[in-house]
Amino acid sequence: MTQETTTTPANPQHLLGLLATTRAIRRYTGEPVPESALRDILFAATRAPSGSNRQPFRFLVLTDGPRAIAAKCLIGESARRLWKDKRQRDGYERGSGGRPDSAKKRMADTLQEYVGQFEFVPVLVLPCLIRYRDPAPTEGASIYPACQNLLLAARALGYGGVMTGFSRPVDAELRELLGIPSNVFIAGCITLGRPRGRHGPVRRRPLQELVYADAWGE
Amino acid sequence: MTQETTTTPANPQHLLGLLATTRAIRRYTGEPVPESALRDILFAATRAPSGSNRQPFRFLVLTDGPRAIAAKCLIGESARRLWKDKRQRDGYERGSGGRPDSAKKRMADTLQEYVGQFEFVPVLVLPCLIRYRDPAPTEGASIYPACQNLLLAARALGYGGVMTGFSRPVDAELRELLGIPSNVFIAGCITLGRPRGRHGPVRRRPLQELVYADAWGE
Repeated sequence: MTQETTTTPANPQHLLGLLATTRAIRRYTGEPVPESALRDILFAATRAPSGSNRQPFRFLVLTDGPRAIAAKCLIGESARRLWKDKRQRDGYERGSGGRPDSAKKRMADTLQEYVGQFEFVPVLVLPCLIRYRDPAPTEGASIYPACQNLLLAARALGYGGVMTGFSRPVDAELRELLGIPSNVFIAGCITLGRPRGRHGPVRRRPLQELVYADAWGE
Repeated sequence: MTQETTTTPANPQHLLGLLATTRAIRRYTGEPVPESALRDILFAATRAPSGSNRQPFRFLVLTDGPRAIAAKCLIGESARRLWKDKRQRDGYERGSGGRPDSAKKRMADTLQEYVGQFEFVPVLVLPCLIRYRDPAPTEGASIYPACQNLLLAARALGYGGVMTGFSRPVDAELRELLGIPSNVFIAGCITLGRPRGRHGPVRRRPLQELVYADAWGE
C-alpha cells in the first residue's frame, strides 16, 4: 500500500504554505463550526504520531451544552486574570524600551478582546493525555503533535484557532465539572472558529537564528 | 494582509490528506536530502506556534560532518540497547495473548533494521528547547508542534521521518559533543530520508474512541 490516498497529485507548495501560514486566530465570527468540519479537524488530530503509537491522546470537545458553557466561563475567568497580570508584567502598555510599540499594542488589544469574549468562542477543545507513567517533559511528544494537526486542519478548512494555557489555573475545577480522571493531563485549551476580520502574517524569527548545523550555535 | 500566500487555491482535501497519511518512516534509501529540501522542511518547522510566540525552539541538523557521524553513532548504540530491552519487555516475539501477531512481527523487523542501520540515516535532527523556566509537561507545547511541522513538510516533499527518544540515554554525551548548553532541553531525535520500499497506512484507533463531547468518556 502506498502512502498517498488522494487521487490527484497534491501541490507540495500548497502543503508547505499551509504549514508556513497557519497563525494563531483569536477573533471569530459568531457562526458555529459545522459538525462535519469539526469531525474532519478532529480526525486529522487523531492521526498524529505518539510515543510507541500508544495514542494516549483524547480530545474533549465543548460547544454549547450546559457543561461546555460552564467550562468556557471557568476558563474565561482564568484567562482574564492571567492576561491582566501578563499585560502589566510584560509591559504591553509601554512598548519596548519605553517607546510605544504598535505591534505590541495591537497584540494587547487582540488579547484583551479574546479573553473578554472567551465565553463566546464557538468551540473549545481540551486536548488530554492519559498518563501511563510519571509526568515528564517528553510526554508532550504524545499530545502536542496532535494539537498542531488540529490547528492545521482547522486552517485548511477555513477555520482558525489558538492553544493557550488558560485552563491551567482552573485544572481542578475542570476535572470536577467534566469528569476528567486524575491520571489524565489536561495539556492546554484550544479555541476554534471562523476567523473574523483581517489577520496579519505569521511572525517568526528568521530561519538562520533557529537552525544550527553540526553543532550548537553554528 | 490575508493569510493566504499561495496564488492558486489549495485543495482542502490535499491538506487534510497530508495530515491523515503522514506516518513514521524508518527505512530510507541512501540518497542525501538536498540542501533546498532540508531548508524548506526546517522553515516549516520554525513557523510553528509556541507559548507567547517566544520561539524557544532550535534545530540542530546533523548530516555528514565528523560530529554528525559521532552523534549518529552515539544515538545508534543507545537505540540498539533500548530496542533490545523493549523487544523483550513488550513481547514483540510472542504477539498478543501468546498468539503470533504478524503486524507486531513486521514492526519488530522494521525497528530491528532501523536501529541496526541508525548510523546511515541521511539526516538526524535534534529538536531543542531553550528553557526559560523550570521543566514542565506543558513546555512541550513550544517544541513538539514544530517537530510535527517538520515531519509534515518532509512528507509533503516526498521524504519521511520519525521522532524517537533514543537520544535520551546519551543526553550528557550529546551535549558535550555538540556544545549544547545545560539550559537546553533535547526534546527527542528525528531521522529523515527518502522512504525506501512500501509503507503501510497510518494505524490509528477510530475517531470515536479518541474524541469525547461535553464530558470525559461521552
